[in-house]
Amino acid sequence: MIVMKHRAWFSAIVGVTLMLTFVSGRTVLWGQTDRWYPSRWGANDQRGAANRITPAKILEAKNLITRGAIYPVGRVYEPGMPMFGTRHYSLRIPQAFKIPGSNQAVYHDELVSGELGQIGTQFDGLGHLGIGDLFYNGNNRADFAQPEGLTKLGIENVGPVFTRGVLIDVARYKGVSQLQPSYEITAADLRGALQRQNLEIRPGDAVLIHTGWGALWMKDNAKYGQSCPGIGVGAAQFLADEEVTVVGADNWGVEVSPNPNASLAAPVHQLLLARNGIYLHENLNTADLARDSVYEFAYVFVPLPLKGATGSPGSPIAIR
Amino acid sequence: MIVMKHRAWFSAIVGVTLMLTFVSGRTVLWGQTDRWYPSRWGANDQRGAANRITPAKILEAKNLITRGAIYPVGRVYEPGMPMFGTRHYSLRIPQAFKIPGSNQAVYHDELVSGELGQIGTQFDGLGHLGIGDLFYNGNNRADFAQPEGLTKLGIENVGPVFTRGVLIDVARYKGVSQLQPSYEITAADLRGALQRQNLEIRPGDAVLIHTGWGALWMKDNAKYGQSCPGIGVGAAQFLADEEVTVVGADNWGVEVSPNPNASLAAPVHQLLLARNGIYLHENLNTADLARDSVYEFAYVFVPLPLKGATGSPGSPIAIR
Amino acid sequence: MIVMKHRAWFSAIVGVTLMLTFVSGRTVLWGQTDRWYPSRWGANDQRGAANRITPAKILEAKNLITRGAIYPVGRVYEPGMPMFGTRHYSLRIPQAFKIPGSNQAVYHDELVSGELGQIGTQFDGLGHLGIGDLFYNGNNRADFAQPEGLTKLGIENVGPVFTRGVLIDVARYKGVSQLQPSYEITAADLRGALQRQNLEIRPGDAVLIHTGWGALWMKDNAKYGQSCPGIGVGAAQFLADEEVTVVGADNWGVEVSPNPNASLAAPVHQLLLARNGIYLHENLNTADLARDSVYEFAYVFVPLPLKGATGSPGSPIAIR
Amino acid sequence: MIVMKHRAWFSAIVGVTLMLTFVSGRTVLWGQTDRWYPSRWGANDQRGAANRITPAKILEAKNLITRGAIYPVGRVYEPGMPMFGTRHYSLRIPQAFKIPGSNQAVYHDELVSGELGQIGTQFDGLGHLGIGDLFYNGNNRADFAQPEGLTKLGIENVGPVFTRGVLIDVARYKGVSQLQPSYEITAADLRGALQRQNLEIRPGDAVLIHTGWGALWMKDNAKYGQSCPGIGVGAAQFLADEEVTVVGADNWGVEVSPNPNASLAAPVHQLLLARNGIYLHENLNTADLARDSVYEFAYVFVPLPLKGATGSPGSPIAIR
Repeated sequence: MIVMKHRAWFSAIVGVTLMLTFVSGRTVLWGQTDRWYPSRWGANDQRGAANRITPAKILEAKNLITRGAIYPVGRVYEPGMPMFGTRHYSLRIPQAFKIPGSNQAVYHDELVSGELGQIGTQFDGLGHLGIGDLFYNGNNRADFAQPEGLTKLGIENVGPVFTRGVLIDVARYKGVSQLQPSYEITAADLRGALQRQNLEIRPGDAVLIHTGWGALWMKDNAKYGQSCPGIGVGAAQFLADEEVTVVGADNWGVEVSPNPNASLAAPVHQLLLARNGIYLHENLNTADLARDSVYEFAYVFVPLPLKGATGSPGSPIAIR
Repeated sequence: MIVMKHRAWFSAIVGVTLMLTFVSGRTVLWGQTDRWYPSRWGANDQRGAANRITPAKILEAKNLITRGAIYPVGRVYEPGMPMFGTRHYSLRIPQAFKIPGSNQAVYHDELVSGELGQIGTQFDGLGHLGIGDLFYNGNNRADFAQPEGLTKLGIENVGPVFTRGVLIDVARYKGVSQLQPSYEITAADLRGALQRQNLEIRPGDAVLIHTGWGALWMKDNAKYGQSCPGIGVGAAQFLADEEVTVVGADNWGVEVSPNPNASLAAPVHQLLLARNGIYLHENLNTADLARDSVYEFAYVFVPLPLKGATGSPGSPIAIR
Repeated sequence: MIVMKHRAWFSAIVGVTLMLTFVSGRTVLWGQTDRWYPSRWGANDQRGAANRITPAKILEAKNLITRGAIYPVGRVYEPGMPMFGTRHYSLRIPQAFKIPGSNQAVYHDELVSGELGQIGTQFDGLGHLGIGDLFYNGNNRADFAQPEGLTKLGIENVGPVFTRGVLIDVARYKGVSQLQPSYEITAADLRGALQRQNLEIRPGDAVLIHTGWGALWMKDNAKYGQSCPGIGVGAAQFLADEEVTVVGADNWGVEVSPNPNASLAAPVHQLLLARNGIYLHENLNTADLARDSVYEFAYVFVPLPLKGATGSPGSPIAIR
Repeated sequence: MIVMKHRAWFSAIVGVTLMLTFVSGRTVLWGQTDRWYPSRWGANDQRGAANRITPAKILEAKNLITRGAIYPVGRVYEPGMPMFGTRHYSLRIPQAFKIPGSNQAVYHDELVSGELGQIGTQFDGLGHLGIGDLFYNGNNRADFAQPEGLTKLGIENVGPVFTRGVLIDVARYKGVSQLQPSYEITAADLRGALQRQNLEIRPGDAVLIHTGWGALWMKDNAKYGQSCPGIGVGAAQFLADEEVTVVGADNWGVEVSPNPNASLAAPVHQLLLARNGIYLHENLNTADLARDSVYEFAYVFVPLPLKGATGSPGSPIAIR
């Protein structure tokens, strides 16, 4: 909020801002009036913070691999996993196919369906969520959201994520195994936890937040999905300022839900995806990393290149 | 074929073999009468050659990363890509969802369906193809092939593949940019190409075969899918003897199709998957690696852990 | 059960029966040892009791239409409807398609998936359920249950059902609005109810059983699906003896569940579908017919001709 | 076109019309400036011409049934059938389910997916196609086209179609077995054919047009789908004036394609669906009716009540 000496000027600016909101396409968000586009990577960029994964960053990550120990950080996809609304996940094994031949080759395949980039462990792409009609780099959904796939910002643009990963164990910092439902993780929480862990964040990192909420996965799915602790707008802005590439968590939305400001829904998604081109990685399993105090690692995830998709399934891995 | 001095003994053995085939469950394959199970990793093993990816192997792979250059080796999934039979691939972007709130959060997801582990770039798991009713480690499909997913050998058992990768550029070895349709790559071809490249294969490797056939992908799909050059049984046995973990190629089946022995269908699949627990990776894009003469690299692929699936989609990567 | 004077003979027959069960493919069912195939309509017949719908039967049904009043007897297909196991139902409206042209044609379609012949109001075909490996007319599932569709007994063989419909209001006959969970409707119940309604059943009829259980649909789905009142084996045999074509009900399985004989699962399905080629129609809405005491009507249902399917969705109608 | 004495006034009106087009939501279509909403059935009506199917109309149809002969007019749904764009149709039979019990109940279901209301024989609902953003009764797609289903104009609103059916054999009227590709059927063609057949159309009818194009179905799908003979705007207006309820044909779009006016796409869909609330039934099989000169019959079709769908699959029937 901009503090003004003169109320008259203040009112004028609010009024002008509101007017500009509707006339020019600028969105006033939480009092901010700046325009988030064009992107710092150019008006045609579709990759956002993936641009931070350079050969140097890849080598930095590689150098963290000293033991050859891989921690899978993704969840198995199975029926009954927590899912939002009326999304579905189905897998069936059809009757076997017998290939004619003397060697009796018999094979199976599987028929899979569902909102695959947005169920289970999911990597949100830049076409997933926006502010009104506008998405990352000012792309308007009326232009790019086509029935056969997004024509801009599709997940196939991201490319492999091979970068330094940092686990911020906020639960341990707060002295608990699991944060409270709807606890908002603040920038101060993140800084404090990093300090306890004697680590800093660097540009291009994949930052994983451990809340402990993941312990509810497939144990109490109703509770898991009803709300969650997670980062708030302030913490998200901190991570954006640190110029990370991915923010992940062991909850279903990364951000706290519901937001403490009851009138806001998914503001962190908007701040990270739309305004900063930073990816989100949801429904992660960070329990083993937290248990072993593995706070720094190579983070590897290759989005499934479904052309025009909004996100990607898949199991990211952490390697030490 | 076992050479016998005495015809009588020979006939007896053939007769006994045939009898044993039907009575005991042993399969006579290309003259071999040995039984491929239980697996060398034990009667309960479901992971086969994935067991070869040890921390030491991971470190060996990691040490090949010197430039931080990533080559995506997988194909984009898109409508119109070559597919077998009546399989399908569908992706649709539903109407946007508007989340109630003052900040106008609007999001997209995608609805995807198809035989996802067996279309596009596909990693064949050990539940994919067998010999009659028997699959890797002697598992009988009547037991494990259940409608909601394979209860044994499902792809979720494989775990991350992070290993030494070797590209064998057979096309270049033969002095062409693209091998002939239905050209059978022999063990001698593989040895010769490796010698030209001054490389050897080691246990646990992911071996990628470059045939040049991949140049037809999305250029002439009809030709791409009608047949292909690829490894034959002899070359497959060579790779199995070298104890690799994955065999991949820039064609749709890895193995030559049709097989020069017209009565055999997918014998290499049987030899590698069922008899040796070695994975196949099909529809790869090896063109860039071949172009840049990148023959040795870290090969990274994390199967999509769809519980009970026969295979996995996804884009593997090669890193130097 | 066959009553024998001499125990020795009895034991011998039991023993012989058991032996015959395993050696000859005959199934002993509830003490019956007869063989239900070949069908009375011939060894190649795939249509079963649909053969009873002749032009004369169609005219008989037509003559019941006197008021031009149509009662839809099917349920709307919507998310959240009761479904068995891990079946799913998904409908999404993709982003609109805009057709190039000066007249701004814009259209929507829908993407639907699920086990469509076996969810919601469902008409069970003869390939749906069998006794061991054997289905209607002795067809063995190893032969006809192919991955791309049943090659025998597929729903496309049934043809339109336009026949005399009879509602048997068993609930009213028993003096209640809703039968108890797991109440077994007996042949005596059916006869008594028909007598109250002053009606008889004729060959080729579609007989709908009103249990009152349908009132739970989309009101208490958990209770709806957990069990249900319905016909037992005796009532099913009565209907088979009456040579009906379809048996339907306002519950999820037509037959009582669980069966009073705890060792039996779906014996009525076996008796009607497999042994008699009589179709089942589940999840019907018979409330309006019962409310209006409409007991005799034209029953019209055209199975969705999905080639090779086991059943059909769709809304049957009753016309007076 | 309004004839004006004074050119000045004429120009003014054109200018005002164009202005009104963009400012008020009125659509100028082929020179017509009238507003097609609210519907004659009221501003809240969602059923359009289905309102014409009254008990009297049902009885009129019933009285046409004299022989008890049913002609299925729909096509079997199978892989490889002609489909538009990247739509798909998939049916798979999963591995059999075995129900625990002494009676060995084994069952199959099928997994189906695709744009089911808009593939194969398809009945277009009023939410399927519009003029710009406006659909039947002035409904705006921004309001009713929600991701989980149309919230207005969904196919579940239509109700059973049991009405008088009329086959207009235009091919025979023109002396051919199959009309030429892209032949526009005019109102004069329809009148002439009706006169030859000594029939008239009545309000509420289902009018089926026989072009002969259906002979290409599953014989030459490429030709079938590339273009088709069909009714043009004039013929459509004639049918709308006759107040029919359904217009069907043995081609893929009912209307001629491409339209003789190259700048128009799907104008008949707009005229019938949006402006008049009249349904379209595509990909019908009218060959048997034409062969047997069955021109008047009961037409029966019950839309599959998929809540929120844009159209319905299913096989309509004609009964004499």
